[in-house]
Amino acid sequence: MVQNSPMRTHRAGELGADDAGSRVTVAGWVQRRRDHGGVEFFDLRDASGLIQVVVDPEEHPSVHDLRMEFCVRVTGEVRRRPEGTENPELPTGDVEIGAADIEILAPSKTLPFMLDDRRDVDEMVRLKHRYLDLRRPRMAANLRARSKATAAIRRTLDGEGFLEVETPTLVNSTPEGARDMLVPSRLQQGEFYALPQSPQLFKQLLMISGVERYFQIARCYRDEDSRADRQLEFTQLDLEGAFWAEDDVLDTIETVLAEVVRDLRGIEIATPFQRLTWRDAMNRFGTDKPDLRFAMEITDLSDVFADTGFGVFSSALEDDGTVKAINAGPQEWPRSRADAITDRAKELGAKGLVWVVVEEDGAVRSPVAKFFSDTETKGLIEQLDAGPGDVILIAADKWRTVVDVLGGLRLDLGRPQGHAELAFLWVVDFPLFEEDEDGEITFSHHPFTSPASIDQMRDDPENAISRAYDVVLNGVELGSGSIRIHDPDVQRQVFEILGIDEETAERRFGWFLEALQYGTPPHGGFAFGIDRLVMVLQNEPSIREVIPFPKTQSGQDPMTGAPTWVEPIQLRELGVELGAEAKLRKEASPSPEPADTQTD
Amino acid sequence: MVQNSPMRTHRAGELGADDAGSRVTVAGWVQRRRDHGGVEFFDLRDASGLIQVVVDPEEHPSVHDLRMEFCVRVTGEVRRRPEGTENPELPTGDVEIGAADIEILAPSKTLPFMLDDRRDVDEMVRLKHRYLDLRRPRMAANLRARSKATAAIRRTLDGEGFLEVETPTLVNSTPEGARDMLVPSRLQQGEFYALPQSPQLFKQLLMISGVERYFQIARCYRDEDSRADRQLEFTQLDLEGAFWAEDDVLDTIETVLAEVVRDLRGIEIATPFQRLTWRDAMNRFGTDKPDLRFAMEITDLSDVFADTGFGVFSSALEDDGTVKAINAGPQEWPRSRADAITDRAKELGAKGLVWVVVEEDGAVRSPVAKFFSDTETKGLIEQLDAGPGDVILIAADKWRTVVDVLGGLRLDLGRPQGHAELAFLWVVDFPLFEEDEDGEITFSHHPFTSPASIDQMRDDPENAISRAYDVVLNGVELGSGSIRIHDPDVQRQVFEILGIDEETAERRFGWFLEALQYGTPPHGGFAFGIDRLVMVLQNEPSIREVIPFPKTQSGQDPMTGAPTWVEPIQLRELGVELGAEAKLRKEASPSPEPADTQTD
Repeated sequence: MVQNSPMRTHRAGELGADDAGSRVTVAGWVQRRRDHGGVEFFDLRDASGLIQVVVDPEEHPSVHDLRMEFCVRVTGEVRRRPEGTENPELPTGDVEIGAADIEILAPSKTLPFMLDDRRDVDEMVRLKHRYLDLRRPRMAANLRARSKATAAIRRTLDGEGFLEVETPTLVNSTPEGARDMLVPSRLQQGEFYALPQSPQLFKQLLMISGVERYFQIARCYRDEDSRADRQLEFTQLDLEGAFWAEDDVLDTIETVLAEVVRDLRGIEIATPFQRLTWRDAMNRFGTDKPDLRFAMEITDLSDVFADTGFGVFSSALEDDGTVKAINAGPQEWPRSRADAITDRAKELGAKGLVWVVVEEDGAVRSPVAKFFSDTETKGLIEQLDAGPGDVILIAADKWRTVVDVLGGLRLDLGRPQGHAELAFLWVVDFPLFEEDEDGEITFSHHPFTSPASIDQMRDDPENAISRAYDVVLNGVELGSGSIRIHDPDVQRQVFEILGIDEETAERRFGWFLEALQYGTPPHGGFAFGIDRLVMVLQNEPSIREVIPFPKTQSGQDPMTGAPTWVEPIQLRELGVELGAEAKLRKEASPSPEPADTQTD
Repeated sequence: MVQNSPMRTHRAGELGADDAGSRVTVAGWVQRRRDHGGVEFFDLRDASGLIQVVVDPEEHPSVHDLRMEFCVRVTGEVRRRPEGTENPELPTGDVEIGAADIEILAPSKTLPFMLDDRRDVDEMVRLKHRYLDLRRPRMAANLRARSKATAAIRRTLDGEGFLEVETPTLVNSTPEGARDMLVPSRLQQGEFYALPQSPQLFKQLLMISGVERYFQIARCYRDEDSRADRQLEFTQLDLEGAFWAEDDVLDTIETVLAEVVRDLRGIEIATPFQRLTWRDAMNRFGTDKPDLRFAMEITDLSDVFADTGFGVFSSALEDDGTVKAINAGPQEWPRSRADAITDRAKELGAKGLVWVVVEEDGAVRSPVAKFFSDTETKGLIEQLDAGPGDVILIAADKWRTVVDVLGGLRLDLGRPQGHAELAFLWVVDFPLFEEDEDGEITFSHHPFTSPASIDQMRDDPENAISRAYDVVLNGVELGSGSIRIHDPDVQRQVFEILGIDEETAERRFGWFLEALQYGTPPHGGFAFGIDRLVMVLQNEPSIREVIPFPKTQSGQDPMTGAPTWVEPIQLRELGVELGAEAKLRKEASPSPEPADTQTD
């Protein structure tokens, strides 16, 4: 029958002066062992913290066997440390355990890397031994923070009457948007499930079902070409409300984010968040996800240079373009740096960049200063509120190019390191449609987003505004949402404008258009990335640092070796076989059998 | 900019006498419309409940347009219902809204089925229109119950200091156990991820990482041949603790289950749960998941018939078998029923079944009564505590056959309908190994389960006991767990006994055996199925009733049509193509393009 054997009486990090005199048993890892004049000390670490253990090696010669990260159990008396040896840095620093019994629960091989946070360890090595990497204080704190974040989200939404509803993860394939990850069906040979890019249509169905307030912390999948800091699988808070307009969504998300920040950072953030229209965000910051922790706003100079003789500016303005600038503030500005920033501007899409340095005496230094009239120079300095030492960067081109370039330079030159300060922001009034790379009209958000005006959508689709909104934190887009289309006729019109003919719409979305016809309530919702939110709040540079077991950019897990080759019989059962190139690749590869994972 | 337009001021089900005199706006669905002497009434339903709306059709002729399940918004004054017309059945039954304004938010087509719980609707029709099915009170209650269950689980474990950690769902393929669902990798062409059957090895890695207390409500996947009431994807509470022995696991699970039952049923269940060894469970109830809501225990008769002249019994006993019986209690027992029960016993594996009816006068009636001695008859009646009218069913065969047969008959004859009463139970001391269909030794639980004794495991593997345990509710196995192997040498020995040679073990599990070598703490854990738990607590006959969007036995979603054919180019990008049979099947099928699902 089941045994009862409590393996420890206390957690290491919770012992203190009040426990002095008690006999305790603790268990954990040997963190650091040291010899002080014939007495051995080591720190025993568990998930709660550290406690110093003192051992008389004559009584316990086995203490000499203890190595870093051995897992041990220690029984002994808690006693106050001798006066003058307390460690005020450590919560348990007033006490130590005098070991009466030491048991090695599991020895440890020599570590592939040291487990403190001060060393830079190659990420591949860390991922290969992720179970050790997660023992590092920083990574352990990230795991705790992520758990606290999702707990805070759930607690808040539970309190607001939301139902957590699980939507399926074996769904329909989606020929548009990001690439799907596919799962061959064994029972319907030749057919495939897709892993969801988001629970979008299912959450809309839940609104039709009358759930009214839905949320889910949902695993989602996107097989995108490797962009920096993307993972094949990621986690989002997904929510939706019926009988909702914009403010209901935004208020809910603000409440959730405030609670998460309270739990992870211990601070109150101001709500409601600032709201910028997409147009303002682009004009002032050159991006739809502005980092508002610093100003360096983009300033329009079209008026200043309206009659300029400087050909670069005048031809841009004549060509329906614009002239804009940022004041990058005081900068060291040798020729090499000016060239580097100009090259960067070209990378960002500019044909060139004009720089102007304001000298101590108020005069300007610039390769093109001679082309500016005095009025223009004066206007330039005034508009940009520039003082001695400031460097002004000017771009002249099509509107979109100008704001993209200056937005990019603004980030390069002004963005603070890390995320000590938090600047939340809503970007609203996104365009409904945009042009794709081939010049075809496509949706900006997704085709289920409600237009602000149906008339405008039909008459002037290029300028039509949608009821979509993004939340941005320190220049990181955390997530987006929209009020959805709940009228099947409007939905059909959107498909039509997108060039999806009626038959195709019916074939692809017929089941959803059918669902919309049974008294669909007005509804809207949101989704934000848990990985990104926790990354920013934990001040980490990459989502991989807050994902317990992430994959590399090439989609591999260096620890388990996933993905792996599988036996041909497994594939045959699923009605698929390898393509010709994959077969060649397999023949060229050593073909280890995959590792086993079993189940509870 | 974002609009602020609260769509309603109150939720329908929350209005009461205190609101009389207030002007309110509510929104929801038209549930029932009726005409009483020139005044129109309808019930407006939202997620919170119903409110009666009274409309003067002369003032609002549009009320005649309202049909079932139209989505409407109503503004008007809350007033007390006229005396004598209150509805005490309804929480809002004291009041009604006198409509001043009615707006149709969305009309509804005629429903494919009525949305009340009294009608039996074909499940395929329900699944095709799941969004309507979920409007039915019973299904809406199931959604709420499931959300409450997971909230209770999380709240409890959060309070106990568990971290919720997300483990990956694109993992290694597993050649053993249930079939994996596979996901072709685009970046590593020809290689595959598997969807996890459980997070088993990852939760063990988290113990090695020092997390100490982990949980996750995890989506898991099994591509099993369609057994009744299985789904390709299902959800389990998965948890694990370091420095844990059995009682730590069992106490935690009991605490969690008690909280869920409290929230869903409003009752306290007694803890600790009864514990039965696997051997006792099999001997007394003929199953490793006994339903303890009724007795009808299996009784051993080997002593009674030790010297019997009845050849069926004596040859079973001589052949190292056993003779056992259940007292099925008073039963109508015409010949036809006796034959039917005997046929059922044969289905369950018996060669035959002996039945004995105790007559009013204490005599016995049975086709084989004449072969029993008086002592045997007397012993039989005494052992089974049988009285007039009782029917005794006796099986004689190998031990396993006898208990399987009588356990099956016990359920058929005694099991209560539904789940009004709740009987929780632990089954412990499972065998470590069992024989598979080919007579090979295999693990009963999984190969990471700790043996109770390493010596016994080596010397007498057939009888070796494991440190595995199951929790059972009303004869439904909710879940299972074990204390794991934390010593890499023991893990290697288990692989060896299972016939996995060293090289294969290294190739398949090398990375895990490596991980075990860095001071792995003793640990154990558990997993139980959320679907099954909620099914029982909601008194539902199938897990499909508590899964928001389930699939059919053939893995299909009648609503969206998933799985679907995909474009050959999508497959080529993934390095796979259809097998020959799947190609033929595709050519024979109409090939609609898959439906689109887009993302927030």
